[in-house]
Amino acid sequence: MAEILRGKAVVAALKEKMISDVEALKAKGIIPTLAIVRVGERGDDIAYEKGATTRCKGVGVEVKNFILPEDADQNDLLQVIDQINNDKKIHGCLLFRPLPKHIDDDTVRRALNPEKDVDGITDISMAGVYSGSDVGYPPCTPTACMEILEFYGIDVKGKNVVVVGRSLVVGKPAAMMLIKKHATVTVCHTRTVDMPSICRNADIIIASAGKASVIDESYLSPGQIVIDVGINVDDEGNMTGDVDFNAAEQIVAGITPVPGGVGTVTTSVLVKHVIEVAKKQ
Amino acid sequence: MAEILRGKAVVAALKEKMISDVEALKAKGIIPTLAIVRVGERGDDIAYEKGATTRCKGVGVEVKNFILPEDADQNDLLQVIDQINNDKKIHGCLLFRPLPKHIDDDTVRRALNPEKDVDGITDISMAGVYSGSDVGYPPCTPTACMEILEFYGIDVKGKNVVVVGRSLVVGKPAAMMLIKKHATVTVCHTRTVDMPSICRNADIIIASAGKASVIDESYLSPGQIVIDVGINVDDEGNMTGDVDFNAAEQIVAGITPVPGGVGTVTTSVLVKHVIEVAKKQ
Repeated sequence: MAEILRGKAVVAALKEKMISDVEALKAKGIIPTLAIVRVGERGDDIAYEKGATTRCKGVGVEVKNFILPEDADQNDLLQVIDQINNDKKIHGCLLFRPLPKHIDDDTVRRALNPEKDVDGITDISMAGVYSGSDVGYPPCTPTACMEILEFYGIDVKGKNVVVVGRSLVVGKPAAMMLIKKHATVTVCHTRTVDMPSICRNADIIIASAGKASVIDESYLSPGQIVIDVGINVDDEGNMTGDVDFNAAEQIVAGITPVPGGVGTVTTSVLVKHVIEVAKKQ
Repeated sequence: MAEILRGKAVVAALKEKMISDVEALKAKGIIPTLAIVRVGERGDDIAYEKGATTRCKGVGVEVKNFILPEDADQNDLLQVIDQINNDKKIHGCLLFRPLPKHIDDDTVRRALNPEKDVDGITDISMAGVYSGSDVGYPPCTPTACMEILEFYGIDVKGKNVVVVGRSLVVGKPAAMMLIKKHATVTVCHTRTVDMPSICRNADIIIASAGKASVIDESYLSPGQIVIDVGINVDDEGNMTGDVDFNAAEQIVAGITPVPGGVGTVTTSVLVKHVIEVAKKQ
């Protein structure tokens, strides 16, 4: 039976460190603050906002909410971003996307000051994660994968890691972060031929296929570590990952559960980034 | 015996297209122009400059040279970059790097207008190649690899491509461009364990290890295509690639020679980028 790599323990370890960091900052008169910008009332966004807010409060990070109506003008949103850019008391900004269709995503995300881009959406953050330099921040989800691997003592150096998915939110940044940590990285996607055999040869699989339970026993082999990034909701309203957990548990050495795995750690990474910005101040 | 994938034929095809593009631009009063910025008198730079200049003239693209002494001040160089940024008659800029140690590379490359960044050195170009969007330009060498594959009718879609090397000049951008073209891409590097067996399983190998003839018969298998990006000079002054060409020629289906392969196409890509900028004007 596989070791279950729960996010909870990772979150607890991160929290302890963050609390002491925030205390040190507050002693210097700095209150780390996250701006959350939401356009409209999408359920997913509101749920994430609640989770992030709880996580912030839990370590003493302040949250400022900027909520615009679904039909808000692009300029209204740009004005909010501008206000955040110029407010020295705000350290990081989480902007929910996709934005409504009448708003140009590129224009808005490029308007954000990269130094406050704690969720890795600006070009500068992308260049940073791509080049492996210390500019901006990588997106929170792949960073959560790295935090889990690190917490459970799984060294990726020289390991064969297969990343399933090539999105800008998970697959590509995960690949870049893994290469930086000296993993040999293979990026698979919908056009990959014989993905099961490629995955079977991996030491570590990062599963972000975006399809429920698509990674089944044919993709897996003994000794592997599987990080399941998928969040899917089945017909009965249950949350499931991209990996067939029951099958995987019988085969691999370690696997993150869904829920309770990567998703749990993601908001902690967001808060950690906010604190890092505040520390640079 | 492998098919020899010579750069010359690729260059000829690109040249034909470029000549007609330049004619069309000149009819509109636009003369595509490349600025070449060199600090110091390094032999490699001067050789590349000569090659690029010849390639430009051959299709009717103008070249403006900006040559600074080795001990030039950083501000002098920034002033040159600023002049290039503001000159509407200059469409692209090639800046030789590495710069002398007293000049900060990040400051200088970030000063260049990304729209004129035909050699892919700015953060915006990096974000563009990483995200697969149409911002800036990818570096010329990996683009030359893609041009060769395309010219010889080698479709990368669904193919297993191994990129040896993770540099920002070749390995990473090559990986990103290949992923965009739907290849399944594995990035290997110095920390990779058992690189020969990983390479043997590839359909296509992009070799940019930076070490002469390191890719020998143990890395190769029948039917493969090998793109050799290496440029090494042996004790007798002969230029060799990163692949043991004589061994490879007996095994694989197709291979680029060194010299006469990727390097030959690189300057054509540079000129092509200049023309593309001019076309956007």
